[in-house]
Amino acid sequence: MTQKLPPLPIYFANEKSSRQSQATVDIRDRGLAYGDGIFETMFVYQGKFPFWEYHQRRLQKGLAFLGMTFDKALFEQHCESIFEYLKNNPHTCIVKLIVTRGESARGYAPTSTTANFFTSINAFSQDAILNQTGCSVHLCKEVLAEPVSWAGLKTLNQLSYVLASKERIETDFDEGLVCSSKGHIIEATARNIFCVKNGQLITPDLSGVGVAGVMRDVIIERIAAELSIELKLCSLTPEQLLEADEIFICNSVTGIWPVTKVTGFGADIHQRPVGAITRKIQTMAQSLIEA
Amino acid sequence: MTQKLPPLPIYFANEKSSRQSQATVDIRDRGLAYGDGIFETMFVYQGKFPFWEYHQRRLQKGLAFLGMTFDKALFEQHCESIFEYLKNNPHTCIVKLIVTRGESARGYAPTSTTANFFTSINAFSQDAILNQTGCSVHLCKEVLAEPVSWAGLKTLNQLSYVLASKERIETDFDEGLVCSSKGHIIEATARNIFCVKNGQLITPDLSGVGVAGVMRDVIIERIAAELSIELKLCSLTPEQLLEADEIFICNSVTGIWPVTKVTGFGADIHQRPVGAITRKIQTMAQSLIEA
Repeated sequence: MTQKLPPLPIYFANEKSSRQSQATVDIRDRGLAYGDGIFETMFVYQGKFPFWEYHQRRLQKGLAFLGMTFDKALFEQHCESIFEYLKNNPHTCIVKLIVTRGESARGYAPTSTTANFFTSINAFSQDAILNQTGCSVHLCKEVLAEPVSWAGLKTLNQLSYVLASKERIETDFDEGLVCSSKGHIIEATARNIFCVKNGQLITPDLSGVGVAGVMRDVIIERIAAELSIELKLCSLTPEQLLEADEIFICNSVTGIWPVTKVTGFGADIHQRPVGAITRKIQTMAQSLIEA
Repeated sequence: MTQKLPPLPIYFANEKSSRQSQATVDIRDRGLAYGDGIFETMFVYQGKFPFWEYHQRRLQKGLAFLGMTFDKALFEQHCESIFEYLKNNPHTCIVKLIVTRGESARGYAPTSTTANFFTSINAFSQDAILNQTGCSVHLCKEVLAEPVSWAGLKTLNQLSYVLASKERIETDFDEGLVCSSKGHIIEATARNIFCVKNGQLITPDLSGVGVAGVMRDVIIERIAAELSIELKLCSLTPEQLLEADEIFICNSVTGIWPVTKVTGFGADIHQRPVGAITRKIQTMAQSLIEA
């Protein structure tokens, strides 16, 4: 029996637990002014967060790194409102949580502000075609300068990804790959990248730049171990990528996309079938989501 | 006779020309979500913008770089409201204009959005002590990764400057210096840097990273020429900085601060008097502001 659920999006701001169809932020919020904040984009399956602990861990790392003054009780109240809503309305949806350093007077220096929490619950339309058939990726011209002190975190400073995504939509591929200023493959615009070579799983080390995604962490910490696949975190050169037996990209919202076509590295088009290890990882990821 | 002026700040949003004591931004605004926008902070002297054309030039460069869809008539209406307000209320104040790519659904890729304009008119309290006595600067640990594709522009991705400013306020110096990942001196947290060596004016080339400030442009394009001072844009190493005869930092709001004390490069404290060329540039900058 399918329950009829109310339309999305809806919004929550700080302690306001009531459902709102609109939400606003003070113009003095430092998230807007300087990108002084972090965010999490979380997949919700039938009202439940499959990877809540992973998102919370990265969020806490971000808050600690930025040194934000943070009202723990207020945050718990904010989260409680969202859990309560999803318990009563078990959407399969996308929850986006933004935490900013709060409002302040003009000036980069953070003064005595307290973090603000903004959450939107967004509709999710299931379209698993790329999970099945695989996707095409192209190397973007936009480069991620490194090292940044917030490497691995998901801050509100995402202009590189906006510009890379702009390249992607102006052409005709499913995702864009981005390199670091040192010439290593770091990730896709909204996904992390893995490749398989001789049975070994390889993913870029993100200690210099990049967003360490939750699905990446799930694969590194759970799936690779459970499937007994050897895993290596290292710099990934374009040559290594092109020589890989299998390639896939992933995030926690759309899951795992096998990569079947790679372009942008010279004139050649590099094609490969969907790999067997990719399929195994995909199956296990799906089972964790539906657990 | 001093005119009694209404209190600040006040805010303008898009076409709303009426004075508002509060202003808000839609939570879906891409400026908040990703730092997908630019800003200008402009000094206003007795109701007039001394360097309006310079700010407009950088703003237009930023809009073109980001490829924003932009309603020119709306922007002109927005600016007209601000001019009108300042004509009737000739504050000496700080006008901050934020332009974002507008609201969109979740996702880095810019879809069919139209730019939003937000302006705040902020109080300015004159405190020219550092212009007179000079200031102390310290090298920050936070580093500016380079190259970024928006070098020179003033985007909403300013987390590096927030983190560097956080270092500054946690210690006891007037400004922080920031280096690039290549080890060159780029700027101060909210100011550009110049030094003088054997009568020649030197300022860092900002083609890899950094914000090309309006006062910097005024000095390069007008003041150096009018004072017949030879000018060089180049990489600035810490060694070059420490060997300079004069150092100053500047922005268009607080003008020119002579640097009299430099720390953070090893254990030594590097002191120097306020230089004669710095004073000449300062005098001319002030005359341009009051012209």
